[in-house]
This record gives sequence, C-alpha cells and structure tokens, in this order.
Amino acid sequence: MHHDLHEFFYPKTVAVIGATDNPLKPGRAILENLSFFNGAVYPVNPKHTTLLGHRCYASIREVPEEIDLAIVALPAPLVEQEMAELGNKGIRRAIIISSGFAEAGSDGSARQQRIAALARSFNIRVIGPNCLGVYNTDNGLDSFFVSRERVSRPTAGRLSIISQSGAVTVILMEALARDSLGLAKAVNYGNRLDVDEADALDFFADDQQTGAVAMYMESVGDGQKFLKAAKAFVAKKPLVIWKAGKHEMGAAAVASHTATLAGKYGLYQAAFRQSGAVEAYGFDHLIDAAKAVALMEYPCVGDRLLIVTNGGGMAVAASDQAQIEGFTMPVMPEAARERLQQAFPSFFVTSNPVDLTGSGKNEDYATALKEALPYYDAAVVIVLMGATNVTEEATALIARACHEAKKPIVCCILQGLGFTRDAMSALLKLGVPVYPSPERAVRALAALRKATCRSAGSE
Amino acid sequence: MHHDLHEFFYPKTVAVIGATDNPLKPGRAILENLSFFNGAVYPVNPKHTTLLGHRCYASIREVPEEIDLAIVALPAPLVEQEMAELGNKGIRRAIIISSGFAEAGSDGSARQQRIAALARSFNIRVIGPNCLGVYNTDNGLDSFFVSRERVSRPTAGRLSIISQSGAVTVILMEALARDSLGLAKAVNYGNRLDVDEADALDFFADDQQTGAVAMYMESVGDGQKFLKAAKAFVAKKPLVIWKAGKHEMGAAAVASHTATLAGKYGLYQAAFRQSGAVEAYGFDHLIDAAKAVALMEYPCVGDRLLIVTNGGGMAVAASDQAQIEGFTMPVMPEAARERLQQAFPSFFVTSNPVDLTGSGKNEDYATALKEALPYYDAAVVIVLMGATNVTEEATALIARACHEAKKPIVCCILQGLGFTRDAMSALLKLGVPVYPSPERAVRALAALRKATCRSAGSE
Repeated sequence: MHHDLHEFFYPKTVAVIGATDNPLKPGRAILENLSFFNGAVYPVNPKHTTLLGHRCYASIREVPEEIDLAIVALPAPLVEQEMAELGNKGIRRAIIISSGFAEAGSDGSARQQRIAALARSFNIRVIGPNCLGVYNTDNGLDSFFVSRERVSRPTAGRLSIISQSGAVTVILMEALARDSLGLAKAVNYGNRLDVDEADALDFFADDQQTGAVAMYMESVGDGQKFLKAAKAFVAKKPLVIWKAGKHEMGAAAVASHTATLAGKYGLYQAAFRQSGAVEAYGFDHLIDAAKAVALMEYPCVGDRLLIVTNGGGMAVAASDQAQIEGFTMPVMPEAARERLQQAFPSFFVTSNPVDLTGSGKNEDYATALKEALPYYDAAVVIVLMGATNVTEEATALIARACHEAKKPIVCCILQGLGFTRDAMSALLKLGVPVYPSPERAVRALAALRKATCRSAGSE
Repeated sequence: MHHDLHEFFYPKTVAVIGATDNPLKPGRAILENLSFFNGAVYPVNPKHTTLLGHRCYASIREVPEEIDLAIVALPAPLVEQEMAELGNKGIRRAIIISSGFAEAGSDGSARQQRIAALARSFNIRVIGPNCLGVYNTDNGLDSFFVSRERVSRPTAGRLSIISQSGAVTVILMEALARDSLGLAKAVNYGNRLDVDEADALDFFADDQQTGAVAMYMESVGDGQKFLKAAKAFVAKKPLVIWKAGKHEMGAAAVASHTATLAGKYGLYQAAFRQSGAVEAYGFDHLIDAAKAVALMEYPCVGDRLLIVTNGGGMAVAASDQAQIEGFTMPVMPEAARERLQQAFPSFFVTSNPVDLTGSGKNEDYATALKEALPYYDAAVVIVLMGATNVTEEATALIARACHEAKKPIVCCILQGLGFTRDAMSALLKLGVPVYPSPERAVRALAALRKATCRSAGSE
C-alpha cells in the first residue's frame, strides 16, 4: 500500500529551495548532505546558476522535472510566497526547515497559520516548520542542516527515530554512530504544522527497514490519533518513548521550545501503558532501551534474573537495580550449583550473582551461562576488562551463550580507554547490547522485558 | 602529626612477599607497578634470586633493610606463617592482597580471625585481606595487581578514593583517567580485617593532596566510628558516598561479595545526612558528583538555577531534572531580558532556559551568562556541538564566565565522536565539570549544592 508519507522518505526528485554556498546558512549543509542521496537534486536560488556542481534554478517554476519533495530552507518571511509556487508547480510534499514560526511568538504563530492554510488549499503535506526533516539510510536522503563533519551519520540498522526536537534527533544519531548501532530512518517534525508523530508511527509500522522506534516527545498533536497509532505500531514492533516536560519546570521549558502544551504527565503515562509502549526515564535510558529492543533478538519472558560478574561490587549495584525494576533473583538450583562448583576454583561464588572474582577467565563466563541460564529468563553479564585473565574473546563466548540459550543477555562493560571500548564494540557487533554501568544494563533489560510483555511493567 | 596510616601511603621501603615473574599471578603486576614507586622495593620469593631487575630475597628475614610496608601476595594458606615472619622482622604495616578469607566461607573466616590475632599480637596494622591496597600519585606507590596496560592510571589530581570493592576502585580510576580528572590517592580495604573506611577518611582529612573523597561502601565496620570520621572529614572537605546493597537483593549480593551485612539502608541514609556527606545514587552519579566537588571551586549557595542551551529539547530534560533535584528556575529579570533581547536575534528565547537555538554562536553563550548569571546561584550550560556556529572555543568563553561570576557552572556536552570529546576535555581542563546528558549535569550540580550546604538536600 502506498502510504501518504512515502514520498517524504522515498522521493525520486528533490528540490532545495534556498540552496546556497554560504557555509553559515542551512541551505549549504542540506545541499552537501544530499550528495549522498540516491536520486536527483535541484537547487533553487535566483542568485546562482550553479551550486556545488549542480545546475541552480532561479525559481521552482524553472525546474524542468516533476518534483516529489521540496526542502524549503528560506527565511521565514519568504516561505509564504514560496508555498504558492510549490503548489502551482504541483508539488505535494514539502519539508519546511525554516524557524521563525509558532515557536517565535504571536507574529510567528500567525505566519504558521497562513502557511497551514496554503498547504491545505494546495493539498501539500508538510513536515515542519522549524525542523531538520528526514533522514533515510536506505537511499541516502538527508535533509538535515548539520554537516557530517559535525554530526556523524550512523550506518544502516533496524532502529528508526521520531523526534519533536532537532537537537535530540542529532544527538541520538550521533550516539548510534558512536556505538556502531545503525539507523533505519529518522524524522524530526518540529512545529508539527501537519505531519505528526502518529503519522510517522503509522508509516514506520509498515516500513521494511524499521525494526523498532525510539521516540522523543514534548507533547502530542492529537491524543486519540497518537494512542491509536501507538497501539497499532506496538502490535508489530517495539516502541520506546521519552516524554520530556513531565514536571512544571520542564513543561514551562516546553512552552518556549516547541510552543506546545506539555500536558498532564499522568495522561501520557496512561497512554504509554495502554499502547504497550516502553517509557524511557530520560535521554540515557532512551538510547539504552532502544539499543536493547533493536539489537536483542530474544524476548525476556519472565522476571528471573541471573547475574554473572568478575567484580562483586558491580553485581551488588546490579542486584539493587534489579529489585527496583521488578526482577527476582532466585537462588541457583542445586544441580547447576554442583556443576559450577566442580568446574570452578573453590573461591568463586556459585550463587546468584555468580562471582568469578578477579581470577575469572573467558571460559568461566561460558561455563556459568551454560549451566545456569536455563534456569533463568535473562542474564546481566558484567565484565571488568581490567582483570588479568579476561580478554576481548570473552565477548564471543558470551554472545554464543546468548544465542544458544535463546534468552536475552545484556552486558555491562565499564567504560574506559581503548581496551574496554574495543570489547564493547565487539559485543554490539555480535548482537549483545552493552552498557557502561550496571544500573543502565539492568534498566535496559527491564525495557526489553516491558517491550516483550506489556503486563510486566513495575513502576 | 604522624597519622597511623602514614606508612601505608608514604613508605620509604616496600617488600613484596610473593613477587614473581609469572604474568598470571598478582605478584608480577604488583612488582611491575612498583617500578613507578619513588622508594626502595624488595621482592621476596625463595624460587628466585633476581626478578625484573631487582635482587630477590628468599625470605623477609634476609632483606637487609628495615621495611616500612609489606605487600603480601601469597596464596591464603601461606599468609598465616608469613605474618609471624613480618612481626619478627619488626614490620608494622602490611597490605594483604590475597583472597580466600572471610569472603570464602567458614574455613576462610577462621583463617582471617587467626591472621587478625597475629596482627594484633605483633602490633601490625593491616589493609585487607582480599584487596588491591593503596595507590598514591604523590610518590608512585601502587600495590594494585592490575597492569597499567589493562587499567590506565590517572594523573595527579585532588580527588581520593576509598572503596570496599576492588572492582569499583579500578573502574573509578579508569574513569578519572579517561576524563583527565586526576587522582590524589586510592585505598581498597577489601575484607577490612583492621584498617577501615573511617581510618581512611581520618587520614585523608589531613592529607595535603586530597581535596575531596569519593567513597564506595557496601557496609561499615563500626557505625559510630564511621559517623564520627565522616563528620570530621566533611567539616574540612566534600565527601560523596555510594552505598550499594540498599535493597534486599543487593544486600544478599553483599553477603556473598564482602562477607558483611549490608545493614538497613535507612540507617546509612541517616548517617550520611547527619555527617553532611553527599549520597550518590549509583556508579554514574558517584563519578559525576565527585567530578563536580573535586573540580568546581565555587560553592552553590542557593537553589536558583539558570539554564542556557542551543538545543531546546535538552533544556526541557534539564528543567524536569532540576525540579526533581529541588532547584527553582526563576524567570529572567526584566533588566537582563532586555539586554539579551538587544544582543540577540529575535528568534532566540530570552527566558529561563535561554535558548540560543541551532544558530547560537560561541559569544552568545558568554553574553547570556554575563547578563543573566548574576541573578542566579548556578548555571547548567548545554552545548550541542553539532550546531554550525559553535566551535570548541565556546568552552573557553563558558569557563571564563564561570570564573568571572564565581558561581558554579556545569556543562552538558552530549557524548559523541571526536569533535565533541575534544570539547569535553577542553572544559574539564578549564575547571568546568562536563557531563554527557542533561540529567546527569543537573544531578551533579545538585550534589555540589548538597556538599556546599548541608541543609539543601531534597530527596
């Protein structure tokens, strides 16, 4: 089925209104970033005849092709007139990058309303204004006015991003790039004149490349529409949402940021619960939970948690957090315990947590997981890479244990310098989510469990 | 005054009992790490005559010098006999690295009690067993059995570490090294046969190099002694404590980790409050809070928080967290607002948060802080380095504004790849704590405020 948002993500022809070679203006970065786009690009600017190797057109009228998508990067006062030009040219999809609308006081609000009326009369679907627009790893489409030098683009992956904030969008993308996690698509809709979070969810629900969505919102455009879209989405794929502007002071900041009402936080929480979306506590948890649901292929079907560590203190922290998140930590069954005691030196601790101590070797992780994981629903594995007998090869053994048991394992490798970072990358590449603190590992696993089983929530 | 712990940190002569060239044994890493020690080192092992360029002695009796400190890295069953040797040699300070004592069941407990009795009868002060011992940046003393290749050592700094867990100790050290933060001294006392957290606090209270202490504990040895030491310490320097084993499941993990009772969490919280210590929520917050109190030279004397950002979404998150932490965010005074409106383009938001938007330039941060900070007690400054007009030079302007206002500023630079990491390092070098998420920045500032003003707690 042809979704209404399809041409925003898969246009064949794109015009950039306000393209420029001035590096201080957004039209420059957009044009540069579109050099990676697998389609035709038409810069429009009356002051230029060529731009970065493209022929440049004085107006959209002069562009000789049909245009599937217009990216508008003009100063706000010029956008109104341009809308009519786009409409007359028969363009039906526009991303309005420009700021200076509803977020900028009453004049801006009036301007935004006039744009909205024009869009309706010309039957133009609009993303924005005051936004970054769309990013699509599948065809290289990139309407973001941030250079790749400044913000690294992730490789292809299963996670898509829906964000009301441009800043959060690029920071998420950079975090994905840093962690070699990969991205399917991203959309930042800014002032939400037309296309909103529910439309985006609706599109991503059927998008082949999207396996899960991480969402940042300060408000919703239409509560009922959002709830319906979220329910339909969660029936197919995991959804993690970070709602900001929860408390009075945050809600006040929302009003000046996206010119919307943050609304009653309790209503949002009820909607998240009803739809089966996983609520993230904040920025770190949004990334952490998204990483877990996008990367881990096995569901967490129960609350019985196993912890394996080579550093006791970190297992204590993980156990504290596990209790907060509603996990249980049943004692090790006698059969497993006996096998572990036979395999391990006497000073290893063969209860739950299993503590391999500073003497634990790579194979000891494999042994512990092989014998114990069958009795549990999931494991948090903590690896202190500073221990003498642990090497990066531990990561392969842990990943294998995960795939053999077909149960989720999340790892904690405490962030440090080169050596530990390499081990983290290795785990991620093997499909095991890894986190820089025990608390974050447990919280991410809790998110995976909620995504697996809607009734498992415990806050 | 000569403190009883002085020779643990400032020995002139050190013997390593159980030194070896076997890279799988702790005695090897210890001897290697002592090559950085500014004093005399005497390896003891009957199987060797030389070790890593040192003459090696068959027993401690044969060492021709008086020994200020013995580091014992023998298998547990051999330690008992060695204690008598140390006593007869007149040694009065011993770090017992070996595990296999109280943490390893009833046999180990009995062994530990016998060691304790021997230590008392010979008047030997003991750190350990089952520990890493001490690290002192001031003279290169390093009894840790983890190689520098595995765990980077920080440079000299103002923070000292007291930790019940060896794992937490090395991870903290690596985090300090990663953030170029620096360390004064560290002690991991393990099973706490003799020297405990209170003794360490007492020593660090008068230690010239120590400006603040970050502490990890699962239990205390003697509650009243600890409370007295913590009160005396906090009267002089900030103290941040992470207590693990708060909840039942964590407390169970403590029992198998350090063979101690985690105790009632409420009692610990009362002790922290009474002493004026700042309680950290977990691992990340311990580092974050320690960074704030060790780095920031200005106190946070009130609750009025200013937020300056170039990304609205992140300011919303910071505002939410600020409310949770008990800050207020008064509106911008009219006078400041007018000056900012004159200085800024009309689409900047000149309320609190101040939003410089994606167009904000380096100097705009300086302007916002100069005009507004006088009306507030502290600022959280959020810099999205992906924005076109922001460069690393923003960091110098922010640091200058902090030093001119003599009020604390903490920064949030969202963690990413090379470009943003450079900016983070630059800020830290300029004395401004910087954090990878808005929530963490606000929480760290809240810790600084609690350290400044005991009555400011709000949990």
